[in-house]
Amino acid sequence: MTDATFDLVIRHARCVTAADTFDADIGIIDGRIVALGAQLAAGREEIDAEGRYVLPGGVDGHCHLDQPMNDGSVMADDFLSGTRSAACGGTTTVIPFACQMKGHSLREAVDDYHRRAGDKACIDYAFHLIVSDPTPEVLNEELPALIREGYTSFKIYMTYDDLKLGDREILDVLSVARAEGAMVMMHAENSDCIAWLTERLLAAGKTAPAYHAASRPMLVEREATHRAIALAELVDVPILIVHVSGREAVAQIQWAQAQGLQVYAETCPQYLFLTAADLGLDEHTHHHPGAKCICSPPPRDAANQQVIWDGLQSGSFAVFSSDHAPFRFDDPQGKFVAGEDAAFNQIPNGIPGLETRLALLFSAGVLGGRLDIHDFVALTSTNVAKMYGLYPRKGSIAIGADADLVIWDTGIARTIRNADLHHDVDYTPYEGQTVSAWPRTTLSRGKVVADSGQFLGKSGHGQFLPCNLPTPARPRVRGTR
Amino acid sequence: MTDATFDLVIRHARCVTAADTFDADIGIIDGRIVALGAQLAAGREEIDAEGRYVLPGGVDGHCHLDQPMNDGSVMADDFLSGTRSAACGGTTTVIPFACQMKGHSLREAVDDYHRRAGDKACIDYAFHLIVSDPTPEVLNEELPALIREGYTSFKIYMTYDDLKLGDREILDVLSVARAEGAMVMMHAENSDCIAWLTERLLAAGKTAPAYHAASRPMLVEREATHRAIALAELVDVPILIVHVSGREAVAQIQWAQAQGLQVYAETCPQYLFLTAADLGLDEHTHHHPGAKCICSPPPRDAANQQVIWDGLQSGSFAVFSSDHAPFRFDDPQGKFVAGEDAAFNQIPNGIPGLETRLALLFSAGVLGGRLDIHDFVALTSTNVAKMYGLYPRKGSIAIGADADLVIWDTGIARTIRNADLHHDVDYTPYEGQTVSAWPRTTLSRGKVVADSGQFLGKSGHGQFLPCNLPTPARPRVRGTR
Amino acid sequence: MTDATFDLVIRHARCVTAADTFDADIGIIDGRIVALGAQLAAGREEIDAEGRYVLPGGVDGHCHLDQPMNDGSVMADDFLSGTRSAACGGTTTVIPFACQMKGHSLREAVDDYHRRAGDKACIDYAFHLIVSDPTPEVLNEELPALIREGYTSFKIYMTYDDLKLGDREILDVLSVARAEGAMVMMHAENSDCIAWLTERLLAAGKTAPAYHAASRPMLVEREATHRAIALAELVDVPILIVHVSGREAVAQIQWAQAQGLQVYAETCPQYLFLTAADLGLDEHTHHHPGAKCICSPPPRDAANQQVIWDGLQSGSFAVFSSDHAPFRFDDPQGKFVAGEDAAFNQIPNGIPGLETRLALLFSAGVLGGRLDIHDFVALTSTNVAKMYGLYPRKGSIAIGADADLVIWDTGIARTIRNADLHHDVDYTPYEGQTVSAWPRTTLSRGKVVADSGQFLGKSGHGQFLPCNLPTPARPRVRGTR
Amino acid sequence: MTDATFDLVIRHARCVTAADTFDADIGIIDGRIVALGAQLAAGREEIDAEGRYVLPGGVDGHCHLDQPMNDGSVMADDFLSGTRSAACGGTTTVIPFACQMKGHSLREAVDDYHRRAGDKACIDYAFHLIVSDPTPEVLNEELPALIREGYTSFKIYMTYDDLKLGDREILDVLSVARAEGAMVMMHAENSDCIAWLTERLLAAGKTAPAYHAASRPMLVEREATHRAIALAELVDVPILIVHVSGREAVAQIQWAQAQGLQVYAETCPQYLFLTAADLGLDEHTHHHPGAKCICSPPPRDAANQQVIWDGLQSGSFAVFSSDHAPFRFDDPQGKFVAGEDAAFNQIPNGIPGLETRLALLFSAGVLGGRLDIHDFVALTSTNVAKMYGLYPRKGSIAIGADADLVIWDTGIARTIRNADLHHDVDYTPYEGQTVSAWPRTTLSRGKVVADSGQFLGKSGHGQFLPCNLPTPARPRVRGTR
Repeated sequence: MTDATFDLVIRHARCVTAADTFDADIGIIDGRIVALGAQLAAGREEIDAEGRYVLPGGVDGHCHLDQPMNDGSVMADDFLSGTRSAACGGTTTVIPFACQMKGHSLREAVDDYHRRAGDKACIDYAFHLIVSDPTPEVLNEELPALIREGYTSFKIYMTYDDLKLGDREILDVLSVARAEGAMVMMHAENSDCIAWLTERLLAAGKTAPAYHAASRPMLVEREATHRAIALAELVDVPILIVHVSGREAVAQIQWAQAQGLQVYAETCPQYLFLTAADLGLDEHTHHHPGAKCICSPPPRDAANQQVIWDGLQSGSFAVFSSDHAPFRFDDPQGKFVAGEDAAFNQIPNGIPGLETRLALLFSAGVLGGRLDIHDFVALTSTNVAKMYGLYPRKGSIAIGADADLVIWDTGIARTIRNADLHHDVDYTPYEGQTVSAWPRTTLSRGKVVADSGQFLGKSGHGQFLPCNLPTPARPRVRGTR
Repeated sequence: MTDATFDLVIRHARCVTAADTFDADIGIIDGRIVALGAQLAAGREEIDAEGRYVLPGGVDGHCHLDQPMNDGSVMADDFLSGTRSAACGGTTTVIPFACQMKGHSLREAVDDYHRRAGDKACIDYAFHLIVSDPTPEVLNEELPALIREGYTSFKIYMTYDDLKLGDREILDVLSVARAEGAMVMMHAENSDCIAWLTERLLAAGKTAPAYHAASRPMLVEREATHRAIALAELVDVPILIVHVSGREAVAQIQWAQAQGLQVYAETCPQYLFLTAADLGLDEHTHHHPGAKCICSPPPRDAANQQVIWDGLQSGSFAVFSSDHAPFRFDDPQGKFVAGEDAAFNQIPNGIPGLETRLALLFSAGVLGGRLDIHDFVALTSTNVAKMYGLYPRKGSIAIGADADLVIWDTGIARTIRNADLHHDVDYTPYEGQTVSAWPRTTLSRGKVVADSGQFLGKSGHGQFLPCNLPTPARPRVRGTR
Repeated sequence: MTDATFDLVIRHARCVTAADTFDADIGIIDGRIVALGAQLAAGREEIDAEGRYVLPGGVDGHCHLDQPMNDGSVMADDFLSGTRSAACGGTTTVIPFACQMKGHSLREAVDDYHRRAGDKACIDYAFHLIVSDPTPEVLNEELPALIREGYTSFKIYMTYDDLKLGDREILDVLSVARAEGAMVMMHAENSDCIAWLTERLLAAGKTAPAYHAASRPMLVEREATHRAIALAELVDVPILIVHVSGREAVAQIQWAQAQGLQVYAETCPQYLFLTAADLGLDEHTHHHPGAKCICSPPPRDAANQQVIWDGLQSGSFAVFSSDHAPFRFDDPQGKFVAGEDAAFNQIPNGIPGLETRLALLFSAGVLGGRLDIHDFVALTSTNVAKMYGLYPRKGSIAIGADADLVIWDTGIARTIRNADLHHDVDYTPYEGQTVSAWPRTTLSRGKVVADSGQFLGKSGHGQFLPCNLPTPARPRVRGTR
Repeated sequence: MTDATFDLVIRHARCVTAADTFDADIGIIDGRIVALGAQLAAGREEIDAEGRYVLPGGVDGHCHLDQPMNDGSVMADDFLSGTRSAACGGTTTVIPFACQMKGHSLREAVDDYHRRAGDKACIDYAFHLIVSDPTPEVLNEELPALIREGYTSFKIYMTYDDLKLGDREILDVLSVARAEGAMVMMHAENSDCIAWLTERLLAAGKTAPAYHAASRPMLVEREATHRAIALAELVDVPILIVHVSGREAVAQIQWAQAQGLQVYAETCPQYLFLTAADLGLDEHTHHHPGAKCICSPPPRDAANQQVIWDGLQSGSFAVFSSDHAPFRFDDPQGKFVAGEDAAFNQIPNGIPGLETRLALLFSAGVLGGRLDIHDFVALTSTNVAKMYGLYPRKGSIAIGADADLVIWDTGIARTIRNADLHHDVDYTPYEGQTVSAWPRTTLSRGKVVADSGQFLGKSGHGQFLPCNLPTPARPRVRGTR
C-alpha cells in the first residue's frame, strides 16, 4: 500500500466513528493512522481485535488534575496518576485547567501548570484556562496572546468566591472569545442564591452533606444558565454550559438552541448514575460518606436522570465529560480538610470519574439501548476534540489522525471497585455498580498504554497539545426572525 | 496493501463523512471502497481529486418518479431521466414511492413499480411504500411481508383525498411499524382545514396560484404535526415528519424531541430558497407561472426560511430531501392538466429538485457559513441511508461501503439554468439563482456516471436495493419523568 | 330610598362579587336587587345575615339532567331533583343540554327538552344545545334561528360515537358560531385513540374500571385540545374547552392564551378532589365501586390536581362546573345498564356533583388559601353567566340583578354524606370528604329555596332563561405579531 | 333609605366595577358611598350622569413626583401639579416613591417625602418606598417598622448605578417582604449588559437618543425578568414586574404564572402607544426631540405593542400604570441637564403620562374592542388598590368605599395637546394622538376635583393613605408538581 511498512496493524477491528461503523484493519506508522483497509499488509507489530469494537480514544474535556486549591486541600491526582487512570479507562487525551488566581496573571497560571505537568503525563494533554481575574492586562494582552499560543478555551465561574466573575466581567471575557474565536465554558450557578441558602441552612444547624443539594436547587442552576445564555446572545458568541444536571437547565438550553443560538452543553456521569440520595439522608456530619458525592451542581433524582438521558439521545448535549475533581475521603487534605465535622459547604467539591466515565456510558447507554454508539463516540471523543481545537488530530479513526484507539470488551459483567482503579483517590462514587463493557486495550499514538486492566504506559509519553481554534466557534451567518 | 490491485484509486481526496474530514486516497475494488490511505498503491484507473472535497454520494430519501396519478397528470421524470438528473446533481441513490391505490393491494403497487423501474435506472434505488388503504389484509399480511422483503419504510398522508388516512388507520399502520421495526414518514397537514379554506377561497373567486399558500397556512401543518406526534407517542414508535416548512411545525417537533420522543424531521430546498411570493401575487390564473412553485406545504417567507436554517444548524432536522415531484409547465399532462385556467387546487402539487438539492445546500449552507460540512453529509446522505436501512452500504466513505462518491467543485459561481439540467421537466423553480459549488464528478459503485456537467452513466447500471430495518427504529429504553 | 317598600331586606351581608367585598344591606323588590346600602329602610321581610358571606348564587354551566341516552341507561336526576340538589348546594341557575340525536333535528331536541323540563324546575335554567348532526339544514337554518331565540351556546364532542363530529363538521359549526356570535364548548378527547386503546385493553382482558383511565391517557386529551384550538384559530372564533383534567391540556390552553387566542377553559371538582386511584386498582369487574368515578376525561393524580389548582389561581380557567351526569350505582338503568360485569367501556360516563361543587371549592380553595374569594365568585357564577349570555341578570350582586343569593356558613366541619344530599343518585364520589363551608340559605329571585340543609323551594318556581349572546364572543381587534 | 340625607347623589350612572356593569344612582355621605339603588332619595347635591359610564377613579400605582435626583435634574411635577394633572385625567389616587438615597436611611426618605408632599396634594396619595441601600439596620428595623406603619410596598432596581441592588441584596429585601407580607416591585433590566452596550455605542459615536433603545434590547429585560422570578421563587414571595415592554419579558412572566408562581406584571401606555421610532432615527444629538420619549425599558415596535395588548387581554398583566417621570424638554434642569448635546445615557429617563393614561387605554382598548371594560377597571384601579393595600377604600364602586368616581365622556374625538394638560411638563409624548373618551367629571371623596377639562380641586384636599398589606401577598397553599 505504501512503501513504508506499518509499525502496527490492528486487525479485524469493528471501527466506530461519530458517524460510521465499518470492519477494517488499521495501519499505523509513527503513531498515526495511515491506512484503513479490508486486508492490510503486515505490520511490524499486530494486534488482533477479533471483531471487537475499536473506538477513538476518549477525550476528557473537563477534568481537574493537580490544580492548586485555596482551602488547603490537595487534589489526589497529578498528571501521572490522573492520566494513568484515564488511560486505563479508555481516555487518551485530557484537558485539565490552568487556573488563574485572583491577583495573579494568566501567564503565571499557565507556566505553573506546565511545571506541574512536567513530564509526568502518560497520555496527551492540553490546557483549558480558568479566567478568574479579567484585568485589562488579561483581557487586552494575556488572553489574546495565550489563545494564539494554543490555549483556545477557557472556563468562567458564576459561583465560588475565589473564582466567580460578575456579569460585566463575563461580557468582557466573552468579547475576547468572540474576537479571537475561542470557546468559553460556563459553570452556571447563581452564587448569591447559594450563599443565601447556605447561610440559612447553617443557621438552622443543617450541616450534613445532604444539605449540599438543598443549598443548590435546580432553580439556582436554571437562573444562571438563562443568564449565561443571555450574555452570550448579547455578545453573539458560542458558549458551552458545563455539567448540566437536570430538567430546568436543560429546558433553558433547548430553548436557546431552538432560537438558533450557538449554545452547547455538557453533562457528566454523576447526573446519570448518582442522585441526591447518595449524599445521605441522616443528620450526622462526622466523616459522613455523603461527602464522597459532593459536587456542584449536585446530583438530582431519577426523573432528572431520565431528562439527561433524553437530552443525550436528542442531541441537546454536545459533550460528556467526567469533571474529575479528586479529593481523598480519608485524608486531612481531602474531603475533610476543614475538619472531620466540617459542614457541607466546607467540603471540597468534586468527585473522581476519569476512569469510569466511558464504561458507565457505554454500558448503560450503548449496550442498554439508550444511546446510539456513534453518538457515544461523538459525545466522548469527536465533539470534544472539535469543540476544543484538537480535531482532526484527536477524536476519530481517520487517515492522518493520531492512533489513539480503544479496543472494547463488551458483553461482560464487571463490578466497579475502587481497588481496581488507577487513580490516587481512595474511593469511587460508583463502587458496586455493574458495567457490561470495559476498555480492553488502550493505545496512545500507536503505543499500548493499558491492557486487560494493567497500566502499561509510562510517564513522559504524553505530549502537550497546543489547540487550534474550536470548530464550532467560527462565525455563523444568521438573519433575524 | 491487498493482493488484488485496485480497480480505481481516487487520489488526493479531501474526504468528508458525517463526522470527519481527512485527506486520503480511496481504493476501490468491485465497486466498493476497500482501502483509505495516505498513499495507496496504483489502481488500474486513477482519478486525481486534486485536494477537492470528496463526499458520499447523496441519498435522496424523498422523491417521486413515474408515480401513477389519479388526476390525469403524468410525472415528467421516469427512472431514467430522474436518476440521470440525480446523478448529475451528485445523488447516487434515490428512494421513490411505490404508491398503493385505494382498493388495490400494496403488492400490486410494488410489482407495478418494479415494472416501471425496469432497467432504466442509472443509479441505485430503493422503494418506500405509500399506504393509502390499510385493509386488514394489508396490515396483517402484505405490509409485514413486504417489510421483511426489504421495503422497510412507508409514507402516510394526512391530506389528499385519494391518499389520506384517518387517525384510526394511522394508529393501525403505526402499530405494524412498531411490530416490524419499520420507519413511517408522515405528510402532516390537516385535510379538513385545507378543504374548508379552499371552498371559501374558490367561492370568493380566489383561484390564482397565490391562494394555494392561503389555503394551507402554517396552523394547518402545525395541527397535523402535533397530531402525528401524539399518535406516534401513543403507539411508542419513531416517526419522521416530512417536508417541514416553517416555525409552527418546527416548534412542535422541537417540543417532542425535548420530551425524549423519537420524532425525526425532514426539510427540503423549497423551504430555504423559495417563498410564498414565488407563487405570484396577481390574480390572473391563465397559465400562471406561480403554478411552477405549487407544492405542499407551500413555501413560507424569509423569517421562516431562517427558522429552517436554524433547525438544520441545531439538529432539529435529520434529513434533507428534494421531494422531487416533476410536472411540466407547458404540457397538457402537466401543471395545467385541468385546463390552462385551472384553479390552484386543480394544479398538481410538486416541484422538481433532484439535481439542484445538493448544490443549493452546499453553497448557501456549507460555503455560506450556515451549516457544518459534516452536518451537510449527514443530512443529505448518511442519515438518510440510516433512516431507511441502506447503511452501511450507502451513506458514507468507509471500508466496505459502495463507492458512491462525489468530487465537488467549490469556489465557483454558477447560475442555475433549466437548460443545463438533466430532468425532463421544462423548468426549475430555482432558475437564475446562483450557487458556489456543483458536483464535478459523480461515481456510482466506482463508475463515473457524471462528469463536468455531462451525464456519463447508462440505463440499467442502477440496482434495486432491498432495505434493512432502519437504524433509529430499534427499541429504546425509556423511563418516565 | 324609593317609594316602594322592599319585599325583602338581607341585613348585615358581607357581600362578595367577582371583584369586590363590601358590607351592606341588600334591598329586594319583585325578585330583583334594587338597593345596596349601609343601612337600608325596612322590608316586608328581613333576613339577618349576621356578617356572613353573601355571594351570588352559583351558575352551573355544565350539567346533565334527564338527558335521553342511547345505551338504555336513564339519568337519575330530572329537572326537579336536579335543581333541588343544585339549590341546596348554593346553585341558582343551571344550564343543561338539549341534545340533538343523529338523524333528528335540533329543534326536536329543544322541544323535547322543554317538555322534559315542564314546570319541574325550582330554580332558573337555560339550555345549551348539543350539535351532533350538523346537516346543511341545521347549519343554515336551525342553528342560527335557535341562537337568535336564546340558545346561544352549544357543545361539540370530539369523542363518543353517537355524538362526535369530524374536523370538517367542527369547522362548519364554528363558522356558524362566528357568524352569530355564539359560544362553543368543546369536549376534547381523540376518539380514535380511545377506541384503539380500548380495543387493546379489552383484548387483553383488562376490563375493570381502572382501565377506563388507561384508555384515556392525557395525550388523548392534549391532542384534541390542540386540534380544537387550531380549528377555532382558523375560524377566528372563541371556544371553551370543557372539563380540563391535567397538565398536558392545560399547557396547550396556556400556550393558546399566550398567543392572544380567545381560548377559555373549564375544570370541575373531579379533577381537584378525585384521582385515577378512585377508579380502583383491583381487577374484578362485578359491580365494582370504581364505576362510581367513571367520567371523561378521567381524574388524574395528585400532581395534576396541583396543576389544576395552579390554573385556577393564575386565571387559566374561566369557569368551574360540575359536569353533573347522574347515574345510579345500584340500578339496572344506571352504571351497570350493560350488566353487573360490564367492562369499563360499557359503563355510562359521569358522576353527580351539582350539590357539592361550590362547597368543595369554597372549602379547599377559598378557606384553604388556594383561591381568592373573588375568583371563586367569578369561576362559579359571574364568568359563567357572562360566558353564556345570562349576565347581568345572573352572576352578581348588583342593582338590577336577580336576587339569586347564597348566605354561606363558614368555619364549620361537615362530612359529605350522600344521605344528606338532595339528588336522586344513590352515591356521591365525595362520600366522607370534609368541607369547612356549606350554603346556609339559598335565594332564587328573592325566595328562599333552601335553608339549613332543608329544601324549601317548589317545582315551577324556576323559569326558562333565553340567553343573550355571550360577552366574550364579541369581535376582538387583533393585529398580527 | 337611611336617616341621614345624602350629601350627594349621582343619578343615572352606568356603574362599572372590575366585575360588573349596572345602572344605579349613587348615594354619598361624608365622602363615602353609602347607597346604590335603582332610584335613591334626594341628596343635598345631585349630579346627573345621564347614563354615562361611571367608573372608580383611577389609582396610579407607579408615578414619580418631586423625587430628588442625583444628576442635577429636577422633576417638573410636584404633589400639586402632579395630582392636579392626575385628577384631570380621571385618577384619584397616586402612589409615588419615597426614595432612599445610598448612605441614608429609609426613614429619612419617608420624612423628606412627607415634607415634599406637604399639603399640596389635591387627591389622595400613598407612598411606595424605594430601597437602594439595604443595610442590616434597614432590613432588620426600618423596613419592618415602616411596613407596619403603612408603607407596604417597595421597589427594587436591578439597574441604575445609584439605585440598583445585587442579587444577594434582593434576596434579603425579598425575605423582609415575605416575613412582613409586603409587595415588591421590580425594575428588571440587567445593569451590566446596559453598561457594556452603552460603552460600545458611545465609543462608536452613537450618542443620539435612538441609541437609548439600542442600549437596552429586549434580552436585557428578559434576563433580569427571569432572574427576578427565580429570586422570588427561591424566597417564595410574590413580586410585581413593573413596566414590561414586550415579547421576551412577557414570555418569562407567562412561564412563571403557568408554573403557579405569584408573579404579577405591570405595563404602561408607552408600550402600547409609542415605539422605538419615536426616539428618532437621525444621528444628531443637539436638543433632539427623541429625548422626550427616553424611558426604560424603551418602547419597542408594533409587533411588541400587539404582544402587550394580548397580555392585557389574556390576564398576563395585573396593573396598568403611567410610570409618570416628568422632565421638561426646554429646561436646563430637564432632559438636557447634562447639556444640549448630551448623549442618550446622560438624559434623564422618564416621560409624563399621569393625565393621559386612562383616556388612551379606554379609547384604544375598551372602545377599540381590545379590552373588556371590567378588565380596564381592574387594571387601572381595582387591582392596583388591592395590590398595594388601599382596597376596599379605593378601587371600586361599592358600599363603604371612598366616593372616588369618574364620569366618562365617550364617543368623542379629542386630539391630545400638551396645552390642554395640567402637568408642569412642557410636552406630552402623545401630542397629536386622538382619543375617543375622556374623563368628564372626577370626584375625590365626593368632591368634584375636575370637570369638563377644568381643574376644580384644591391643594390640601388630598390625604395621605397608610396602606394595608397587599391582598395578593397572603400566604398561599401550594403543593409540588
